[in-house]
Amino acid sequence: MSKNIATREADYSKWYNDIVHQADLAEHSDVKGCMVIKPYGYAIWENMRDVLDRMFKETGHSNAYFPLFIPKSYLSKEASHVEGFAKECAVVTHYRLKATADGKGVEVDPEAKLQEELIVRPTSETIIWNSYRNWIQSYRDLPILINQWANVVRWEMRTRLFLRTAEFLWQEGHTAHATKEEAIEETEQMLRVYADFAENFMAMPVIMGRKTASERFAGADDTLCIEAMMQDGKALQAGTSHFLGQNFAKAFDVKFADKQGKLDFVWATSWGVSTRLMGALVMTHSDDEGLVLPPKLAPIQVVAIPIYKTEEELELIEEKFKSLGNSLKALGIRFKFDGDDNKRPGWKFNEYELKGVPIRLAMGPRDLENGQVEIARRDTKEKSSVPVEGVVEHIAALLHEIQSNLLERSKRHREANTFRVETYEEFKQRIDEGGFFLAHWDGTAETEELIKNETKATIRCIPFDGPSEAGVCMVTGKLSPQRVIFAKAY
Amino acid sequence: MSKNIATREADYSKWYNDIVHQADLAEHSDVKGCMVIKPYGYAIWENMRDVLDRMFKETGHSNAYFPLFIPKSYLSKEASHVEGFAKECAVVTHYRLKATADGKGVEVDPEAKLQEELIVRPTSETIIWNSYRNWIQSYRDLPILINQWANVVRWEMRTRLFLRTAEFLWQEGHTAHATKEEAIEETEQMLRVYADFAENFMAMPVIMGRKTASERFAGADDTLCIEAMMQDGKALQAGTSHFLGQNFAKAFDVKFADKQGKLDFVWATSWGVSTRLMGALVMTHSDDEGLVLPPKLAPIQVVAIPIYKTEEELELIEEKFKSLGNSLKALGIRFKFDGDDNKRPGWKFNEYELKGVPIRLAMGPRDLENGQVEIARRDTKEKSSVPVEGVVEHIAALLHEIQSNLLERSKRHREANTFRVETYEEFKQRIDEGGFFLAHWDGTAETEELIKNETKATIRCIPFDGPSEAGVCMVTGKLSPQRVIFAKAY
Repeated sequence: MSKNIATREADYSKWYNDIVHQADLAEHSDVKGCMVIKPYGYAIWENMRDVLDRMFKETGHSNAYFPLFIPKSYLSKEASHVEGFAKECAVVTHYRLKATADGKGVEVDPEAKLQEELIVRPTSETIIWNSYRNWIQSYRDLPILINQWANVVRWEMRTRLFLRTAEFLWQEGHTAHATKEEAIEETEQMLRVYADFAENFMAMPVIMGRKTASERFAGADDTLCIEAMMQDGKALQAGTSHFLGQNFAKAFDVKFADKQGKLDFVWATSWGVSTRLMGALVMTHSDDEGLVLPPKLAPIQVVAIPIYKTEEELELIEEKFKSLGNSLKALGIRFKFDGDDNKRPGWKFNEYELKGVPIRLAMGPRDLENGQVEIARRDTKEKSSVPVEGVVEHIAALLHEIQSNLLERSKRHREANTFRVETYEEFKQRIDEGGFFLAHWDGTAETEELIKNETKATIRCIPFDGPSEAGVCMVTGKLSPQRVIFAKAY
Repeated sequence: MSKNIATREADYSKWYNDIVHQADLAEHSDVKGCMVIKPYGYAIWENMRDVLDRMFKETGHSNAYFPLFIPKSYLSKEASHVEGFAKECAVVTHYRLKATADGKGVEVDPEAKLQEELIVRPTSETIIWNSYRNWIQSYRDLPILINQWANVVRWEMRTRLFLRTAEFLWQEGHTAHATKEEAIEETEQMLRVYADFAENFMAMPVIMGRKTASERFAGADDTLCIEAMMQDGKALQAGTSHFLGQNFAKAFDVKFADKQGKLDFVWATSWGVSTRLMGALVMTHSDDEGLVLPPKLAPIQVVAIPIYKTEEELELIEEKFKSLGNSLKALGIRFKFDGDDNKRPGWKFNEYELKGVPIRLAMGPRDLENGQVEIARRDTKEKSSVPVEGVVEHIAALLHEIQSNLLERSKRHREANTFRVETYEEFKQRIDEGGFFLAHWDGTAETEELIKNETKATIRCIPFDGPSEAGVCMVTGKLSPQRVIFAKAY
């Protein structure tokens, strides 16, 4: 059955867009760069959000909410932050519209100009640290462990659904600490939380590491990241955790008195993941037939489709499926029975395949007679007929198996596409094929820049668990303490 | 112990602000009209949101997300909508900042002016119906039952935390239907959901009714509402549900083919509640000692405070409380043990009273010896000592009792402050005392306007369950089919 999906081989980029549209995840809106996240896409995001939110709370964080708008002057208070974020921003200059002279439209009221322009937050460090100044007097007020779920806006000329949009949804953690050590431990802890989420819920293996100085968050002393490999071999930065030092405390004058009464600036971290993870999820597992979802994040984990000719057959099959569904729901499994009489089974098979539902059940009159049900798994497309008796346990086990198979499959893909290169010649020849390239680099921004300009590849990270053998930079021949990961990236 | 809270009698308005600040719910930000919702306040909002979200899903709705920005021209597509919403708006005119000449600050880049200004959504009917046009072709695409959790901005000059802020958080349901009847039924259903939530979770009795034409949502054919009475006798509109007729379908050209292939415009509803409910919650139950929370929405339902002199005493009491806490948690009760050694029990008693925790437990060495625990309930301030044996069941029952006591107390307050008035003279004399006034009105906008101008009271609603006896308008003496509710309102 034709699905209007380009194959990955023919056009990877079009394949991605086709999946996002055909699986009804999101669409472009008429507002340049802003997307509409459709109900099915949003349901996946809700599952992600709920798991992450629980993980944040388990590590001691609380949610709060800070203003959408940031006074323009705040952005320039932290010297390097302004470089990174005070550029492509949505700027609010007026606070009122009025009717046009012909009474048919509205226009901006020139009388209602703001004294200071407001920026729609591209990230909230500045507005939050401006609040923290009033919240923190002594070490007793620390740590502050806050997270915010919010929309942010970074004006983008070239957008791609989920991967790069002007407005996107995200969470941003902003913590304040009495010591440098505690802030660094927080930065590392949250990176581990992200890696745990990526691997154990998204079934997406990630490499934890450190960004080079030139790839750091604007205003950070250190940026840690998780990097994933997509099916085309490109890297996708899936989450970042920043050690901000005392930079924002200094910019917003946030000091605390320690136990001895001595004043010092507060130490900070911030960390975030966004709806970009939706793009990563799509590109990690999906195939040419549509979306493939890891069971833990699938809005529907098991769909049941009746195959029948008569009303009576439908009733009998529905009864069986409903009873099975109740047993599954009792185990916390998200089950849907699709008895829509207006659609043929073949159409439904196609639809749920497109939407990545991990397990599809089908039952016809003969299955009913034999006490059997057909089970199809989305990841391998294997089908089998099993007895209805004991199928609940079988399904529960199969969901686990699909979850771990997706992770293993992605790991194998990454391993098969991770290469060591020794010379810049080899690097330049092979970089266009895609993949992660472990190479030696001399640690300078100049070399990094040169490689980026010549090949469009960037250093994704200096991996924590990478091989630590020393060597010489593939470009300059200078000493290098360990290999770093180069790749082209989303 | 002094709490810096004004009494309700001395200054109701200051009392409200004091509670919001002292209980650490929210604060004003430096951005005019925008608030910061602090962790404790946000935790209450999360509980509200989670319950409402479940209720929306149980009634068949899904969540989605639409853009923050609305092109200016959209606002003027629906004739009456523009009157209501295209006024006090945040207007985005530019999309870039650049460094100032001295390099020290940033300024708006005049080169980066938008062709068409964007409005930060004050409500999303226009942007959503613009999307629905592409989603709806035939009756098979209907109904669309979507809800969105989002931030919205309506510029306000005079703001009050939660009650009236420029930016606020809310949910907005936007549904599309094939028939008028179905849309009306949806409008009514969602009003019942709101009333259910208000009464059974917020413990806040509400009156369901219909707004007069002049109080309708801009663009609606009919606006239904729930109205609550605050402790000062003022009304607070706690939620609205709108029947939008075919107005937005016509404005955005959204047609569907029915079963016979005939084209018709789609029928619409929208409905919303916001962080304003936080203000309603505070003002419905709290007292001069601080916040009072209904157990179902309290972030902490039971707090346990040890009273001790020695480390050993603390350990023994902590052990007892932790075991009790585990039993409570197993029942889904939100329990906190506060063993902070830096704070005295008296300080903690005060703190949790201020924060409205429904039940406070305390245990000292003598209680330990006697196998007893002291229980204090926040609503009545009653204290009693009960045996630890069986206290879990006692606490579970007490939480239910507090929940229903708060509702009953609020109902009694409303009944005691609801009056029938027959003459406009009497109305004018008594309206300043506060309360709901059931009076006859001739149904004209002129009379409504006159009363509003002379007394500042508005018609809160034409109640569904009100006394239906006919009468004559208190102002004009013309016939009136039923009494309506007048009150001053937030």
